[in-house]
Amino acid sequence: MSRDFGLEILHIDKNTGARYGILHTPHGDVETPMFMPVGTNGTMKMLSPEQVAACGSGVILANTYHLHLRPGEEIVKKAGGLHAFMNYPGPILTDSGGYQVFSLAARRKITEEGVTFRNEIDGGKEFFSPEEAIRIEEALGADIIMSFDECIPYPATKEYVARSTERTLRWAKRGLEARTRDDQALFGIVQGGAYRDLRERAAKELAAMPFEGYSIGGTSIGEPKDVCFQMIRDAIRFLPQDKPRYLMGVGSIDYILEGITHGVDMFDCVLPTRLARHGALTTRHGRINIQRAQYQEDFTPIEEGCDCYTCQNYTKAYLRHLFKAGEGFGQTLNSIHNIRFLIRLTEEARQAIKEDRFAEFKAKIYEDFGDVRGF
Amino acid sequence: MSRDFGLEILHIDKNTGARYGILHTPHGDVETPMFMPVGTNGTMKMLSPEQVAACGSGVILANTYHLHLRPGEEIVKKAGGLHAFMNYPGPILTDSGGYQVFSLAARRKITEEGVTFRNEIDGGKEFFSPEEAIRIEEALGADIIMSFDECIPYPATKEYVARSTERTLRWAKRGLEARTRDDQALFGIVQGGAYRDLRERAAKELAAMPFEGYSIGGTSIGEPKDVCFQMIRDAIRFLPQDKPRYLMGVGSIDYILEGITHGVDMFDCVLPTRLARHGALTTRHGRINIQRAQYQEDFTPIEEGCDCYTCQNYTKAYLRHLFKAGEGFGQTLNSIHNIRFLIRLTEEARQAIKEDRFAEFKAKIYEDFGDVRGF
Repeated sequence: MSRDFGLEILHIDKNTGARYGILHTPHGDVETPMFMPVGTNGTMKMLSPEQVAACGSGVILANTYHLHLRPGEEIVKKAGGLHAFMNYPGPILTDSGGYQVFSLAARRKITEEGVTFRNEIDGGKEFFSPEEAIRIEEALGADIIMSFDECIPYPATKEYVARSTERTLRWAKRGLEARTRDDQALFGIVQGGAYRDLRERAAKELAAMPFEGYSIGGTSIGEPKDVCFQMIRDAIRFLPQDKPRYLMGVGSIDYILEGITHGVDMFDCVLPTRLARHGALTTRHGRINIQRAQYQEDFTPIEEGCDCYTCQNYTKAYLRHLFKAGEGFGQTLNSIHNIRFLIRLTEEARQAIKEDRFAEFKAKIYEDFGDVRGF
Repeated sequence: MSRDFGLEILHIDKNTGARYGILHTPHGDVETPMFMPVGTNGTMKMLSPEQVAACGSGVILANTYHLHLRPGEEIVKKAGGLHAFMNYPGPILTDSGGYQVFSLAARRKITEEGVTFRNEIDGGKEFFSPEEAIRIEEALGADIIMSFDECIPYPATKEYVARSTERTLRWAKRGLEARTRDDQALFGIVQGGAYRDLRERAAKELAAMPFEGYSIGGTSIGEPKDVCFQMIRDAIRFLPQDKPRYLMGVGSIDYILEGITHGVDMFDCVLPTRLARHGALTTRHGRINIQRAQYQEDFTPIEEGCDCYTCQNYTKAYLRHLFKAGEGFGQTLNSIHNIRFLIRLTEEARQAIKEDRFAEFKAKIYEDFGDVRGF
């Protein structure tokens, strides 16, 4: 249904399910697998669009829930859509608000029709439904938009997950029927909790619907790592090869590499920038905290060999000083490093896939990173 | 005494004392009169050095008092000096800490030797003297450094001002004797309060000492506008024509234009960036506050015709959204506008001086700005 959208798979790694491709969007072509930085409120926290682009960003994210509450999608629409409003010329993706409605909103009530909740800013009553999510996302005007789903908590009974998963499938269909624009790619979201047969059913049903891509939802909400990886596998095996797969809310090194191994193309996470604002910086040999006294006279970059703007121009001593002085530019510099770190990881992953050595690449990353897993 | 420093006056306006010139510094040549943005802690709050440079900045400021307390001048020195530490390739100026010692420091005690005060960060005892200020400023390594002075409150008795002014003159001499570097320009600071004869004496005495430039101190601390302008005139008339004059802490449109009228070459102020962070934005027709409801659907830039990055790429509706959402990038964009506004004002002033129409230029600015004076 989207005129200018499509994933072109150019190579599949010989030893894993990792795929290298080009994602065509109305705002340009980007390579996959990719990490997508998150600009919740229509701004990448503390960064200019140029600084984000200099990190090698392809698609960036914005959150429908937040933008609906403030400034409201009609203002964004009148501004000419998100690209014009926030001055980002590349592709943008919006989620459906489902995750936020279930994780942030107060006084939430779910019915077949949709979800009512309280507006945290003005106290008013809000209603999100599959049709409403599409209406808002069309007004925001991102290149890639998401179906409205219920984000199932973990753990949950099989009965609850089954009922919720069926409803999310009905919601997916309603979202497809509600869309009116032909220049946005709509993704279905595979739920099913941690139940393998329910994941299978959700994936198969969605695969039969005319979505332009698929998200793997309901992961990264507290389940053990092996359960998460199983959930990813259980979704992906039933999804079409020729459409993009997006693992939502995942931005740790190992989750990204495992996701790529199983054929995920897109990742996003707020954690790299949130941690950066708190002084936690990622390196190939583990995470460091810039406020530690040991960096007071450390005139080396965060990581030797890193090509990010921060590492090219600033020392740990300076970053520590900015952190201690509470200077916002420190948050900018830290965020640039953490974003570039993950984007560079995916750049190297793509190269490894093209050369059929993704498994070795992953093993080397794990070895270097040591036991300090997670981002 | 500074090898690579000097002001070349290229034109003096036929109808006023306004001068156009080139200031040569070890880190490049810059045009005067100029507005210098303030990066207190060795960072322009919320801005990258590239963003500052894109505003047309020449010299920027950093504060000796703040940098001495944190991270300490020895760390900056080990980093290779302020230029390397904060990644700013252009000229930098440091004040002497005098103003901060007298306006910020607790448990302050002045003697002929210097000033003791409490370190607000670690609670320890600090001592600033003319020699100590020079030692710190040499470690920081700016292109232009200031003598240590007592910033006299307003109002103050003539007896007090006379005594303090004499001491500041002795301190100026001690600072000159203490310097060891030959690649920094040292400025003397004209005090004398609002007493015309004391200003005259201070200016004449300092003019006879081998400073590379002169600051007009003790203004902008609560005195009426006409008193301030008189203080400027009373200092400048006794200062040498061929050396730069710097009016400290002044960044409002009318003060800058009056200063230029009387032959001031350099201005600095934290107000444009501080106000910006609070949503107050300057235009040629007065100041606006971006958080007002009237800008909610205003899809025009802050000011039509402004060439700043913010006005070229963002609308008031977007800036209001960022402000309401508490997003730091809004502070960045607002700061860029306010800095560029003042720098552009001085660029136009320079052009007007070169064409002997500075008085008309000033009158036009006042007329456009209306009654909303200040800033």
